[in-house]
Amino acid sequence: MKHTISVLVDNQFGVLARVSGMFSARGYNIISLCVGETESQAISRMTVTVRGDDSALAQIIRQLNKLVDVIAVEDLTSTSFVERELVMIKVRADSKRRSEVIQVSNIFRARVVDLDAETMTVEVTGSGDKVTPCIEMMRPFGIAELVRTGVIAISRAASAGNGQETD
Amino acid sequence: MKHTISVLVDNQFGVLARVSGMFSARGYNIISLCVGETESQAISRMTVTVRGDDSALAQIIRQLNKLVDVIAVEDLTSTSFVERELVMIKVRADSKRRSEVIQVSNIFRARVVDLDAETMTVEVTGSGDKVTPCIEMMRPFGIAELVRTGVIAISRAASAGNGQETD
Repeated sequence: MKHTISVLVDNQFGVLARVSGMFSARGYNIISLCVGETESQAISRMTVTVRGDDSALAQIIRQLNKLVDVIAVEDLTSTSFVERELVMIKVRADSKRRSEVIQVSNIFRARVVDLDAETMTVEVTGSGDKVTPCIEMMRPFGIAELVRTGVIAISRAASAGNGQETD
Repeated sequence: MKHTISVLVDNQFGVLARVSGMFSARGYNIISLCVGETESQAISRMTVTVRGDDSALAQIIRQLNKLVDVIAVEDLTSTSFVERELVMIKVRADSKRRSEVIQVSNIFRARVVDLDAETMTVEVTGSGDKVTPCIEMMRPFGIAELVRTGVIAISRAASAGNGQETD
């Protein structure tokens, strides 16, 4: 089963290696991982998506909680959260095919962020359910390069369960 | 000096811990790191932003190139690239302040992605130059939660230097 785990850590060097090492030592492959500063520069948040055995994961979470630099660990999988990812896709498109790429972009609310005579780069944000079909629709043009951030997640609105996802 | 480094790796467990360990072993703090699959599921791309001494970094890059799971390492800092980050910000906003939040969101082309009686969650994408002012403008409302993916980067259009950044 796929899990999305949010880890709040002190912004210290080495903490990323320790946290990611905790997963790999137990044979857990990380599908994606993002780490960036939060509203406080001293604290970073990691969002990790992994796939694997639930009981092993429970153990990893217990051990993460014991690391000194780890402030909080939450498995978001069973909670209500908004999940998002940013993907940049550079496709081959000369001036003749440009309008086709723009059409596909509009459908997925993607934005063209770079352009030259032979390629276009678009960015698209969304959950995996939205991003994956967009990539598939871009594939026939020829993908020159693709970069994705991996998933970040934020808990749903304060009164859990009452929030309205608007996009 | 800040560096943006792109590392193409085999999608194997442990590779993230090895790569991030390479930085921390040399006292390099990682500002942000993203790892996600590329157009091929077997290959992941890491985008790492770090700040530190240039000569130490050159050494780290040489050593990364020696790791078996590492396919390619590129320091994008001296090249032309498009840099983007996704940030989700949950602000306190009841119905009276909602239109103010929407105003700020529109200026930064941010999108409201979740909403309840007391909070709003917006997503914004851009380079640090755009994302940081947006966060600062949201701060007075009261930030309940903030999650950022960290930076990803894609090389500028094929004919380097001729591309037009459109957004």
